Amino acid sequence: MRAVLMKDGQLAVEEIAEPTPGPGEVLVETLAVGICGSDMSAFANGEGFNRAALALTGQEMLDLDNPIVLGHEFVARILSYGPETGQQHPVGTRVVAMPMLLRDPQVLIGFAGVDTPGAYAERFILSEDLLIPVPDEMSTELAALTEPMAVALHAVNRVDVDSNYVPLVLGCGPIGLAIVAMLKMRGLGPIVAVDLSPERLELAKKLGADEVIDPTVNSPYEAWMQAAATDDPALMAAPTAVIGQLPLRPTVGFESTGKPGLLKQMIDGAPPGSRISVAGINLGTDEFEPSHGILKELDLRFCLYYTPEEFAQTVSLLDSGRLDVSAMVTGRVGFEGVAEAFERLAQSPADGKILIDPGTTVPA
Amino acid sequence: MRAVLMKDGQLAVEEIAEPTPGPGEVLVETLAVGICGSDMSAFANGEGFNRAALALTGQEMLDLDNPIVLGHEFVARILSYGPETGQQHPVGTRVVAMPMLLRDPQVLIGFAGVDTPGAYAERFILSEDLLIPVPDEMSTELAALTEPMAVALHAVNRVDVDSNYVPLVLGCGPIGLAIVAMLKMRGLGPIVAVDLSPERLELAKKLGADEVIDPTVNSPYEAWMQAAATDDPALMAAPTAVIGQLPLRPTVGFESTGKPGLLKQMIDGAPPGSRISVAGINLGTDEFEPSHGILKELDLRFCLYYTPEEFAQTVSLLDSGRLDVSAMVTGRVGFEGVAEAFERLAQSPADGKILIDPGTTVPA
Repeated sequence: MRAVLMKDGQLAVEEIAEPTPGPGEVLVETLAVGICGSDMSAFANGEGFNRAALALTGQEMLDLDNPIVLGHEFVARILSYGPETGQQHPVGTRVVAMPMLLRDPQVLIGFAGVDTPGAYAERFILSEDLLIPVPDEMSTELAALTEPMAVALHAVNRVDVDSNYVPLVLGCGPIGLAIVAMLKMRGLGPIVAVDLSPERLELAKKLGADEVIDPTVNSPYEAWMQAAATDDPALMAAPTAVIGQLPLRPTVGFESTGKPGLLKQMIDGAPPGSRISVAGINLGTDEFEPSHGILKELDLRFCLYYTPEEFAQTVSLLDSGRLDVSAMVTGRVGFEGVAEAFERLAQSPADGKILIDPGTTVPA
Repeated sequence: MRAVLMKDGQLAVEEIAEPTPGPGEVLVETLAVGICGSDMSAFANGEGFNRAALALTGQEMLDLDNPIVLGHEFVARILSYGPETGQQHPVGTRVVAMPMLLRDPQVLIGFAGVDTPGAYAERFILSEDLLIPVPDEMSTELAALTEPMAVALHAVNRVDVDSNYVPLVLGCGPIGLAIVAMLKMRGLGPIVAVDLSPERLELAKKLGADEVIDPTVNSPYEAWMQAAATDDPALMAAPTAVIGQLPLRPTVGFESTGKPGLLKQMIDGAPPGSRISVAGINLGTDEFEPSHGILKELDLRFCLYYTPEEFAQTVSLLDSGRLDVSAMVTGRVGFEGVAEAFERLAQSPADGKILIDPGTTVPA
């Protein structure tokens, strides 16, 4: 079968062996898969991934000496069941799933080798216990956004804020856009969204941003303070010791760029008492001023992935129509277009989400 | 009256004018005042204080061109009332108070000039509305610990943890020791406390530490993980996405050194899912690895001062006998001994809290 192989710093479409589902596993056909920022990081800076994982878990995350098949934001169709399966869902059912195989050790789907490929392949393997059927009325394209929307749900849940909080979203790539949509659904606002790309700022507006800022033109932090300004003492954030009470509602920031220096910038620029959700992955060493965090009593809450409950809830939210994020999809490529799409996203990102359609025609 | 003046990088005992209480204010006599780490920072690195404050508030915090009278951890006795006062407490009453004058603009007591001196003076001014009488049976020495204990209460409240969390306290200066005592009172444990000084580690044991670590001999982070180890799945911390579930209870760290590099060290060494309360003030730029925060989903919660409720609650806790921290006091000096005490604390700190007793003899 065909797959996009990442090897020797290249992405190339090649034939690989059909994977075989083991006990409790299912063979599925890829219907659509999103290109994720972490796919791009793994491609551009796999060593950085491995350095961080090694330091924390004692194991590298990526086997860079062998081909890797990326792809963890998938919607797929059940083709056949392996041994020891309950087969609750008929063959042909569209499914999404948390991207992991429940083996020992667990496999992170989309960051492993050709034996357990990710969804940048015509077919791949899932654990039956993790399958979530896609509701009939939900488009395949919308279902393909389940994983990034679950990331956004988790990033918002992590800061535990009510609708009086005024959010700044720094970075309108897919995760930033997903966070904007999630905040809108939760009734937070005005939502201030920041990006260098006018196209992405347009998308942010479509998804619910009330104000969009190009930081080369206006200060995101001044815009944020203006958005949070209030005359009503009942709405104001609690005072902080040194800075006191400002005429501002409480504020929450989302760092969704992962760019060096931007977390420091947000710590420096955030209003006192802000909670900051750190969703962008910066694999390097970064600097900051702890005294600014202290004098303003900030909270930094780092985020990764989502819980199983959040993943399942995301499918329900997308199905409910309360979270219409289909505008986020701005590009569709086949396997042959993946290398170019990676380049396009790395150079001057103007896209929301680019989906890969393998164009396979295995009958259900 | 006599006061310790900080000027031109020196601490010297000099005569200054008697302060006069304004409307709503009270003249008090200093009974005891603690030397605080932030007094030492203001003395050693006033420019750093000002740089941080200027960046955040647009104003410098310290007027370094004129003498400053430090001292904000005080217990005092009411001498006389100014105009427009309710005079609820009789002259002679011992009081503590949050160290601020409710003027416009507000004055931070202990960081201002000779007109509104801090408690490194025989007499100073307080706002009547902030006075809290010291219960009769409470010693003056214990009452003088109200302010640092309120800092510790706030640092513990900020991380919002229950008694299943296993704490590491990095740094056993007065704030670290106060945090140890507060955690013990709240029933958290085993408490792992870390310092370079054997004397401070002995104090930490007295105040409630279950295990003390000299980091030049043993790894604080290995000791922390061992302290948190559990076989009981019901007690284990929630799994994190990349690292999964480890056989550890949830963990909470307290950075109470403010030393460059130690927050990075704690981020690198903390178990997944840890909450980290940042109470130590580092006035420089520092480095860290955001990817370690993300892969482990850490929370960094910066802390400063306390709320009025926390300050009042601290007096009650000290009065209740549930928080016996008098062992923390390891030194007593008069005004003439302050400069030497600062030097002693800066060189090779082995003390807990050093209290200043002005030795004044104004009759109540």
